[in-house]
Amino acid sequence: MKLNDIVAEIGGVLEGDGGVEITGLASLSDAVAGDISFLSNPRYASEIAATKASAVLVNADWSGDCPCALLRVESSDSSFAKVAVLISPPPIDFGVGVHASAVIADDVAVGDNVYIGPNCVVEPGVVIGNNCVLIAGCYIGHDVVMGDNCKIYPQVSIRERAKLGDRVTIHNGAVIGSDGFGYTPDKQGVWHKVMQLGIVEIGNDVEIGANVTIDRARFGKTKIGNGVKVDNLVQIAHNVVIGDHTAIAALAGISGSAKIGEHVQVGGQSGFSGHIKVGDWSGVGAQAGVTKDVAPKTFVSGYPAMDHRKAAKNHANIMRLPALKARVKALEEEMENLKG
Amino acid sequence: MKLNDIVAEIGGVLEGDGGVEITGLASLSDAVAGDISFLSNPRYASEIAATKASAVLVNADWSGDCPCALLRVESSDSSFAKVAVLISPPPIDFGVGVHASAVIADDVAVGDNVYIGPNCVVEPGVVIGNNCVLIAGCYIGHDVVMGDNCKIYPQVSIRERAKLGDRVTIHNGAVIGSDGFGYTPDKQGVWHKVMQLGIVEIGNDVEIGANVTIDRARFGKTKIGNGVKVDNLVQIAHNVVIGDHTAIAALAGISGSAKIGEHVQVGGQSGFSGHIKVGDWSGVGAQAGVTKDVAPKTFVSGYPAMDHRKAAKNHANIMRLPALKARVKALEEEMENLKG
Amino acid sequence: MKLNDIVAEIGGVLEGDGGVEITGLASLSDAVAGDISFLSNPRYASEIAATKASAVLVNADWSGDCPCALLRVESSDSSFAKVAVLISPPPIDFGVGVHASAVIADDVAVGDNVYIGPNCVVEPGVVIGNNCVLIAGCYIGHDVVMGDNCKIYPQVSIRERAKLGDRVTIHNGAVIGSDGFGYTPDKQGVWHKVMQLGIVEIGNDVEIGANVTIDRARFGKTKIGNGVKVDNLVQIAHNVVIGDHTAIAALAGISGSAKIGEHVQVGGQSGFSGHIKVGDWSGVGAQAGVTKDVAPKTFVSGYPAMDHRKAAKNHANIMRLPALKARVKALEEEMENLKG
Repeated sequence: MKLNDIVAEIGGVLEGDGGVEITGLASLSDAVAGDISFLSNPRYASEIAATKASAVLVNADWSGDCPCALLRVESSDSSFAKVAVLISPPPIDFGVGVHASAVIADDVAVGDNVYIGPNCVVEPGVVIGNNCVLIAGCYIGHDVVMGDNCKIYPQVSIRERAKLGDRVTIHNGAVIGSDGFGYTPDKQGVWHKVMQLGIVEIGNDVEIGANVTIDRARFGKTKIGNGVKVDNLVQIAHNVVIGDHTAIAALAGISGSAKIGEHVQVGGQSGFSGHIKVGDWSGVGAQAGVTKDVAPKTFVSGYPAMDHRKAAKNHANIMRLPALKARVKALEEEMENLKG
Repeated sequence: MKLNDIVAEIGGVLEGDGGVEITGLASLSDAVAGDISFLSNPRYASEIAATKASAVLVNADWSGDCPCALLRVESSDSSFAKVAVLISPPPIDFGVGVHASAVIADDVAVGDNVYIGPNCVVEPGVVIGNNCVLIAGCYIGHDVVMGDNCKIYPQVSIRERAKLGDRVTIHNGAVIGSDGFGYTPDKQGVWHKVMQLGIVEIGNDVEIGANVTIDRARFGKTKIGNGVKVDNLVQIAHNVVIGDHTAIAALAGISGSAKIGEHVQVGGQSGFSGHIKVGDWSGVGAQAGVTKDVAPKTFVSGYPAMDHRKAAKNHANIMRLPALKARVKALEEEMENLKG
Repeated sequence: MKLNDIVAEIGGVLEGDGGVEITGLASLSDAVAGDISFLSNPRYASEIAATKASAVLVNADWSGDCPCALLRVESSDSSFAKVAVLISPPPIDFGVGVHASAVIADDVAVGDNVYIGPNCVVEPGVVIGNNCVLIAGCYIGHDVVMGDNCKIYPQVSIRERAKLGDRVTIHNGAVIGSDGFGYTPDKQGVWHKVMQLGIVEIGNDVEIGANVTIDRARFGKTKIGNGVKVDNLVQIAHNVVIGDHTAIAALAGISGSAKIGEHVQVGGQSGFSGHIKVGDWSGVGAQAGVTKDVAPKTFVSGYPAMDHRKAAKNHANIMRLPALKARVKALEEEMENLKG
């Protein structure tokens, strides 16, 4: 695709040769001839001078020297996303139909324009909405109800009675509805299982990452709100409630019955004690250990998690302990002098 | 089911209308008309006044106002577990038999009353005990031996020669017997694999969560004791030994050859260095980093993990650093005054 | 196998009865009669006197009493690895061929001596090199290219267009090429997906652990260098670059566009912020939180991660805060005395 054709599609002000052929996408430092790249994060500004890309997108107000064609746009980041779609192979189209190797119970209700790929297993009582795609090797347990336009990647397991809204995407290997981790010890310390009788309910426009685990409720439901985005390898325990439009980064762990509000941003590898509440529009730093309620619109970090400014102050105080010790030592010497 | 019928099954002293129809289970705050709820954790005591539940279970000595029918029982928590079983759909009954799509080697020994579901793969030499259920898409490697009454959820992989006791439950996507992470570097820093020749041995009454990974031993065995409960996404490395009746919360990571004692409670996202020993009846806080041996009956937390009281004291001391700095500053000023 | 036969294979100086029959491998403390064991790590030196093993390998210069046959070798660790291979069952030989239940698209190019086991799904356009083994239930997405001598364990998912070098081993349940976690919020805080159009490229001699997740690039490639070893349950985000011969322990999480150098050793449960660079031959402690660039040949630990000596000093300073407080209190008393 020629650079001129890209400009025709996405707009912007071109400086340089629009006739150059664009064949790939790359970061400034990785680019080779034929690639188009972009500068958005100022962290990478110094890389533009040495890039081997054939064209670079920058924000309209960028100034500097560029060794190749330059395209000024309102937002280099969002324009580059459009270029990426133009240049990249289209998404896989799985088509429609049920593969001969899929094992589908007799009473399953399948909507229109659905694809159920090789080796999928769909148990009795399942309802699958229109335009759903189950790619391969998925397990859909008894009486699961799935809305329209869901995309279920290979090896996903959805256990019995889970409910999915519309436009839910679940990536490979994720497990929805596994038993919650519930046991009571007897006097000898032997654990006895507490039956996990509830379900998982997932709203609309939810995306769940690879190898995520979301446990069914002890009773009632574990609830994932609308628009929630969950990164890979996250653990969501029984009876957790995740509010609408909250995003959870990889390897975070949320203990039983915690309520995470709406529009919360949860950092990677952070952990949450059971039964706590996190307010709307709050943020939790990576690796934070949240042991008590978090007020709305608050950013917490550290272990135990606290207001980020307080945590940063604590850290600074620790870093300055050698100086504090030196001051105490100086005082001690002066004291000795005074006493002597 | 009428509330009177529930009382007839579980006992207790009813205050209010036993004729109300109970159709669901929910927490006090989530309940709607028709739900039964319970109060056990005092954290939620204030929610009882505003609940929309049709009935609430409380401990016998509870006092307060309740807007709906009230059932006093000895333990609201354990009684509610019984109610939950009465109200909930029964567990899925997979029946008995081998699905036509399962791929079972000729010499596999299958006990009585076994279910092997769609797309399971059972390699040569496997022994499966009585009453086992392999739901779907399970991989059972060569010469695996499985006791009676095991339940293996979809997409579980059990690699060659693993041994499972009786009543072992393994949730979706868990991997038993993957290679340990063992390499030796040469002088150029190139890693060379150390063959992982041992097995995983799992005792009786063990439950293993979704997407857990348990590595086979370098030699000998990685050993999971009787009654051990492992939450989702836990990593257990080669040659680890987990003592009987120990419980391990989600996302914990236990490095090679560590020995965790009996009746230990391991917090979520905690980590353990290789080769350390953790004594019986000890506890490890969430996100703790255990870098050396832990004595029996000790609760450790923090990084590096230490006696929890010491860790809490350290934290308090850090929080009070501004006060300590102020005292040093006051001393300096007094010293200046004295000297001046 | 008789101990004499083992000595004939691996060499060394035998003290004791070479006629004893060796039937198993175990650590010093776990061994029973018939087992051979070894002493390498001095941590276990005291266990040799009480071992029930029938033979023990030690380094040539070891001195002490051993209750059984003793074999002195140059390196007890590497010699024991050889013994382990002699004593253990051979690795499973899956043979060659395509199982009847595998679902392979018409245009897939399969090399010589390949095994594709039960229920594998291989989508159109895939190229599989010589001597590859796909054990069972693997999903190989459209246009994936796999080099020679790769071993793909059950339930592995490799999404479209990923490229694997030669001698790549991927353990059960790992996911290669899932979508990166990329969204942009609108003014109402609703997340909109950024298309993830790139691929994952894996070099030669790479081993990837069970239930690992490696996301495809937003554009361009997420790149795993030659000789990289990745332990179980690791998350590698979109556009990450891992340099050659780097090893990453379990449950580590590497955020988007981070560049980890060559020969880096990454500790378990450590986390990395996006876009940072970690220099060659550096090391990162377990549970460290790496929030900024790390210089080559540096060992960092703690949260936020810093030079390990500095982190250790900080920790020591915290542990000594009670002593510092006592000194301040003593100064205050002396000050009162002076003033009084």
